[in-house]
Amino acid sequence: MQKINLKEKLGRFTDLWSPKIVGELNGQHVKLVKLSGEFIWHHHEADDELFLVVKGRLCIKLRERDVWLQEGEFFIVPKGVEHKPVAEEETHVLLFEPISTLNTGDQRNERTVEKLEWV
Amino acid sequence: MQKINLKEKLGRFTDLWSPKIVGELNGQHVKLVKLSGEFIWHHHEADDELFLVVKGRLCIKLRERDVWLQEGEFFIVPKGVEHKPVAEEETHVLLFEPISTLNTGDQRNERTVEKLEWV
Repeated sequence: MQKINLKEKLGRFTDLWSPKIVGELNGQHVKLVKLSGEFIWHHHEADDELFLVVKGRLCIKLRERDVWLQEGEFFIVPKGVEHKPVAEEETHVLLFEPISTLNTGDQRNERTVEKLEWV
Repeated sequence: MQKINLKEKLGRFTDLWSPKIVGELNGQHVKLVKLSGEFIWHHHEADDELFLVVKGRLCIKLRERDVWLQEGEFFIVPKGVEHKPVAEEETHVLLFEPISTLNTGDQRNERTVEKLEWV
């Protein structure tokens, strides 16, 4: 039962592509993540995933098109849809997704964060 | 599968205390609402509720304390916890909560919005 200041929480970590939990409700997590460069193609079998840009600019590549997000814009990637986040500059993103969501979805490799931490 | 710009969506309505749906994922709704003045005391029996301030300043009164939120701050009201939102100026808030959540929770009166609309 604490309020959360997004900027303050973002100031607590510097690592990229490693989502940190900042809230939990109704079986969902609110996460913050810092992105820069390219991630991998993946999808989430059972989970929809929301990306809200807090700072910077994010490109969510889909197989048939690119979705560019500025600050104050969000996009929901429906379950099963392949996507690849790309950030040309360091970009800060808020994620809403089920507690069970794995960052690399159907892929498991060196980019996978098995155990998310609260920040 | 459209990106959502929060400011653009907020420009589409002017009514207060009437949440509009802007996204749906994993059985949850993302909503935007404009608040000014005082709401009623209520609680949600089964649903946690997230308030993220997009513009302005929000006071979420709890029985034992007040939680003040500025832009870029959020608070999760756990299920069962009585609360009363108060905004001294017009304040714009993003809500994240289950599809089934009623704005007035356990109360049903003239402030209740029975059928939420997408915007």
